Amino acid sequence: MSRIDGRTPQQLRPVTIERGWSKHAEGSVLVSFGDTKVLCNASVTEGVPRWRKGSGEGWVTAEYAMLPRATNTRGDRESVKGRIGGRTHEISRLIGRSLRAVIDYKALGENTVVLDCDVLQADGGTRTAAITGAYVALADAITWAQHTRKLIKPSRKPLTGTVSAVSVGIVGGTPLLDLCYEEDVRADTDMNVVCTGDGRFVEIQGTAEAEPFARDELNTLLDLAAAGCTDLAELQRKALDETLER
Amino acid sequence: MSRIDGRTPQQLRPVTIERGWSKHAEGSVLVSFGDTKVLCNASVTEGVPRWRKGSGEGWVTAEYAMLPRATNTRGDRESVKGRIGGRTHEISRLIGRSLRAVIDYKALGENTVVLDCDVLQADGGTRTAAITGAYVALADAITWAQHTRKLIKPSRKPLTGTVSAVSVGIVGGTPLLDLCYEEDVRADTDMNVVCTGDGRFVEIQGTAEAEPFARDELNTLLDLAAAGCTDLAELQRKALDETLER
Amino acid sequence: MSRIDGRTPQQLRPVTIERGWSKHAEGSVLVSFGDTKVLCNASVTEGVPRWRKGSGEGWVTAEYAMLPRATNTRGDRESVKGRIGGRTHEISRLIGRSLRAVIDYKALGENTVVLDCDVLQADGGTRTAAITGAYVALADAITWAQHTRKLIKPSRKPLTGTVSAVSVGIVGGTPLLDLCYEEDVRADTDMNVVCTGDGRFVEIQGTAEAEPFARDELNTLLDLAAAGCTDLAELQRKALDETLER
Amino acid sequence: MSRIDGRTPQQLRPVTIERGWSKHAEGSVLVSFGDTKVLCNASVTEGVPRWRKGSGEGWVTAEYAMLPRATNTRGDRESVKGRIGGRTHEISRLIGRSLRAVIDYKALGENTVVLDCDVLQADGGTRTAAITGAYVALADAITWAQHTRKLIKPSRKPLTGTVSAVSVGIVGGTPLLDLCYEEDVRADTDMNVVCTGDGRFVEIQGTAEAEPFARDELNTLLDLAAAGCTDLAELQRKALDETLER
Amino acid sequence: MSRIDGRTPQQLRPVTIERGWSKHAEGSVLVSFGDTKVLCNASVTEGVPRWRKGSGEGWVTAEYAMLPRATNTRGDRESVKGRIGGRTHEISRLIGRSLRAVIDYKALGENTVVLDCDVLQADGGTRTAAITGAYVALADAITWAQHTRKLIKPSRKPLTGTVSAVSVGIVGGTPLLDLCYEEDVRADTDMNVVCTGDGRFVEIQGTAEAEPFARDELNTLLDLAAAGCTDLAELQRKALDETLER
Amino acid sequence: MSRIDGRTPQQLRPVTIERGWSKHAEGSVLVSFGDTKVLCNASVTEGVPRWRKGSGEGWVTAEYAMLPRATNTRGDRESVKGRIGGRTHEISRLIGRSLRAVIDYKALGENTVVLDCDVLQADGGTRTAAITGAYVALADAITWAQHTRKLIKPSRKPLTGTVSAVSVGIVGGTPLLDLCYEEDVRADTDMNVVCTGDGRFVEIQGTAEAEPFARDELNTLLDLAAAGCTDLAELQRKALDETLER
Repeated sequence: MSRIDGRTPQQLRPVTIERGWSKHAEGSVLVSFGDTKVLCNASVTEGVPRWRKGSGEGWVTAEYAMLPRATNTRGDRESVKGRIGGRTHEISRLIGRSLRAVIDYKALGENTVVLDCDVLQADGGTRTAAITGAYVALADAITWAQHTRKLIKPSRKPLTGTVSAVSVGIVGGTPLLDLCYEEDVRADTDMNVVCTGDGRFVEIQGTAEAEPFARDELNTLLDLAAAGCTDLAELQRKALDETLER
Repeated sequence: MSRIDGRTPQQLRPVTIERGWSKHAEGSVLVSFGDTKVLCNASVTEGVPRWRKGSGEGWVTAEYAMLPRATNTRGDRESVKGRIGGRTHEISRLIGRSLRAVIDYKALGENTVVLDCDVLQADGGTRTAAITGAYVALADAITWAQHTRKLIKPSRKPLTGTVSAVSVGIVGGTPLLDLCYEEDVRADTDMNVVCTGDGRFVEIQGTAEAEPFARDELNTLLDLAAAGCTDLAELQRKALDETLER
Repeated sequence: MSRIDGRTPQQLRPVTIERGWSKHAEGSVLVSFGDTKVLCNASVTEGVPRWRKGSGEGWVTAEYAMLPRATNTRGDRESVKGRIGGRTHEISRLIGRSLRAVIDYKALGENTVVLDCDVLQADGGTRTAAITGAYVALADAITWAQHTRKLIKPSRKPLTGTVSAVSVGIVGGTPLLDLCYEEDVRADTDMNVVCTGDGRFVEIQGTAEAEPFARDELNTLLDLAAAGCTDLAELQRKALDETLER
Repeated sequence: MSRIDGRTPQQLRPVTIERGWSKHAEGSVLVSFGDTKVLCNASVTEGVPRWRKGSGEGWVTAEYAMLPRATNTRGDRESVKGRIGGRTHEISRLIGRSLRAVIDYKALGENTVVLDCDVLQADGGTRTAAITGAYVALADAITWAQHTRKLIKPSRKPLTGTVSAVSVGIVGGTPLLDLCYEEDVRADTDMNVVCTGDGRFVEIQGTAEAEPFARDELNTLLDLAAAGCTDLAELQRKALDETLER
Repeated sequence: MSRIDGRTPQQLRPVTIERGWSKHAEGSVLVSFGDTKVLCNASVTEGVPRWRKGSGEGWVTAEYAMLPRATNTRGDRESVKGRIGGRTHEISRLIGRSLRAVIDYKALGENTVVLDCDVLQADGGTRTAAITGAYVALADAITWAQHTRKLIKPSRKPLTGTVSAVSVGIVGGTPLLDLCYEEDVRADTDMNVVCTGDGRFVEIQGTAEAEPFARDELNTLLDLAAAGCTDLAELQRKALDETLER
Repeated sequence: MSRIDGRTPQQLRPVTIERGWSKHAEGSVLVSFGDTKVLCNASVTEGVPRWRKGSGEGWVTAEYAMLPRATNTRGDRESVKGRIGGRTHEISRLIGRSLRAVIDYKALGENTVVLDCDVLQADGGTRTAAITGAYVALADAITWAQHTRKLIKPSRKPLTGTVSAVSVGIVGGTPLLDLCYEEDVRADTDMNVVCTGDGRFVEIQGTAEAEPFARDELNTLLDLAAAGCTDLAELQRKALDETLER
């Protein structure tokens, strides 16, 4: 079966990871999964939130948002509405948890990294692109904190692994990897999976959009997702291998 | 291994489902999973939100909240803070999606059911208790709409199945069913699973709180959860078999 | 004249005061005035608000709210609306003032008690039930602070008296005690009276809903209310005489 | 006993009622009770809120606010804080109820009058000055609606009486009429009383600030307040007897 | 050409500057430009905002607001809407910047002055009247801080000059000074100009409401505005020459 | 004198105008003035706001915002704070007014264009870059509405001219065109000027950041700005001359 954009069911969209996109942020990545483009900026500050002071441990958190016209029809700004919607809250929390899964708080020391993931253009999979890109921005920010700003000793390893994410779903009875928007709206089941580079799971969020799903369908989706995350981890590694000029 | 409260790893806490708790709501259930107590009130109104008008289809939604002293230390009211937190948003959305998975919108007709799930006392598993109780309140509300208020023809079947939910997690290396609060805070992995009465999945949300989890751990947790949901479905059936005096 | 529910004009509805309802709160009372049910949880914390620090004096405050389906038709949540309504503000302030009328701040020491009064089911008189139940929760919380947590010396007497409240009103020309909802909506004059156990007034709030009221009508209503409060004070005393197992 | 400002206990402060203060409002009164100055503007609009449409009945409502430096120390603006405080809500509702007590909704027809009561300078008794001034602004606005704008037939009588308000309190054991700020902060008991011109009560709000009060103290305060309201009703009548040039 | 109110194009409306209007504020001015009336209250407090602590420098800021019925039709309160509108923000910021242009922060010492400019009645030019009146209130507040409260040494000169403001515009092809509301709504170009007493510019805000404007039109408007500000500076000087009784 | 980045005082930074940046918006421009990058998306919808319905006239409005890490240090999101700041309001309004200055509402018909200007990276002059880019996005959106979606007849001319904007300022005594951030913070006077393509003024906003400025300084700045806008108009024309592939 051929997909809308000609991919095979097991194929990711073209993924690009552009480091050093913004000149201000300590880590700045423009990630694209096909037409989905997310700007992931990592900001490092000395110190931690009040509830963590004196612990010797750091903190990592994330905020996700969409530009109003990132989507096909314009959405109202949450700043204008005066409140953040449930979906935004949910995804921000997911990104933060996913990144914290590979952080050694002690090694980070009392420093905070905030990951801002702003969707510039959306075509499905914005949260998984955000996690995948934010990991790279986080890695660059930690390198900066160790080597440029000397906040963390270079001998420490605040990152205990790598993390990436991908969506999977069942569309018209076929399990597919990395759904674009058109596939996403037609999916019976939609699942976002976050994996570490060594193939373990950080987060699984599966939702039956139409029909409930059976155990074997779940297993097929998890296989697809695990393979996709392995590919993404390789792309992250390659991107980080290149020299970043500041 | 014996648990804090003496249960076996595969054992639910004592579950009670008290129907007709409030005299005002069309469906009203006080559900308890051990010391977790959630009041689930279903409100039926004729008509649907604007974006659904004229479709001939109904709508089901949910709002979750905690009383400020449902927990061990008092939390500030979200009404006083002027905004709803991310956790509240997330759970409200989960409950709504879970119930909609067993709704036939056409059979419901242009009617709306709102499920208010207010946690009166919390001891872990509030969202899964809420889903399990809300299903029963929803069933009662639909019966009321069919037989008392004649909004829906008695021949229609707006409910396509039953739905219940339970938490599972790995604590100290052991997979456990239906975590109480003390177990929950010590869990490495925490998963909430929503199943239909026929054993299929509606929603899976698994999070690695500490260590990422491997595929076989995931499989064990899913087995535990599926069995727990089967038990809960049986308890729901029994509760609904009793006569409700209005 | 017989009332809707068969009471005489001078008769309270059946009143129950169930102590120790929640396992978390330092004082927890489920109070019912007929079908009106209010959960009153008292939370004790060491320390006082900033404006009172160093004074050696404590603080007592209250927050009142209604569950969305406590009433006959569902009301929107104030947390969802993002703002607290005037009625909620008004009643929260009334409960706080009423309880502070029997508090010796010096004897309380620099400790704070917050009374959360959440209406689970409403049938008129929610604010008077809340005050009556909150007093009992407050008494339990102070006992806890003295004997369990040793925040206050047992020899001190932070409570200078008892306090209870009842509504009165003129319905169809007849002055009635403790109006239920149906009576309340038909009342020409509606008054809430808060009394100490020794028969003095803490707060009087009388409103002409339809016709202004004359001085002799006012006097009759005050007589009714004072007698009702005396009965409530006796019920509070009896409830507190029982042993509370924690 | 002589008071801070030389008055007898039964004496009002100098009261002025200046009609036609603003050129825009349909009724505009600058009322002063001593150093308390409140600008009361009545705005008439055709039509009523949605919940009242088609009823043939009108609506009257009020909003109370204080300028930030109306008081001795500057208060933050509620618009800047983004929320209205409990005290503001409470007083706005009191003013609205008080004025509606003398309105015949049918005679008013489907028209709305909003009373804006903005405290320009505060020295105690702002809510009672607001009610007293707002009544005069309301009377002017109704006259305008009948004679200038022809919204209401001149033969109808939307006002069924007059309404005024005054504070009373017990200071150092002495019952006093119309407390200024310095007296108010030292009062044991503080009561606001709203009366119609024919001597009946519209609203009584009595609060024991320190000691609970006995029935005979209450009676003395009510006598004082009733006499004060009679004086205010006479001042309102005189003010309205003068010709208002528009 | 004669204007709506009979003025010549170069003529200000009658301007009054009434000092000491409120008894509470350290500086209090009721300024009127024709029917536009703005109450400008200056509040002095020791200390500065956190970001300025320890700098040895003071701070001056302003808040502008309109009473709901200051205008011809009633506007909703920003406190009720729960947010401040763009126009209010813009004008508050303009007033603050304009006053800070004549402040020597070092001479002011670590003290803060807040200028509250509340429009009691609006007829065009409210922001320019506010700046002109606020300057006088600020001068009085500084005198108070130097001589009454001894916060600032009398030898210091926190004010480096005077500041006033006026509107100009092109109406029906004719450049006019100090537009009233009726002129303002018909203006093709509308400009607000803030000048120091020595004739230099602090702020220029010119907007083409209909047609873009050419350079020579701009020059004519600036000439008009500069002359108007000179007149206003003279009126400010005269007002401040009078003795203020406190 | 040479500037920080080697420019002459009369020189713009390198300006790029990239059309068709986003695939969703009807007009989408990524504009850069040196390191300042603003994404300007124009969204066209049929219909107008309620207050304009039935007028036969269209509407154009704008919203400006900054990504949190567009700047050197991270700023809090306005959506998280729950309110829009004064600066954001001010600039959004300025952009909207500037574009409306070249719109013929009648020719636009009852259609609305919203311009979202989101600053991806900031280095001074974000509002002027936004206006300059938004004009091009608006032009593309109108072409789309005329030729692709047929909302407006191709014979009509909704745009009556072109509009661009630039900042000017006096830094260290020298008047400079198009200030970058480092120049901006050191400027004594800062002015933003919006011009039409035929050299007339749409908006002038000049502020004395430190010293008030004299008339001849103002004249020099206006000359600089007018020349800069002429250059920008030429760049806009060139950008629009290229073929846009959709």
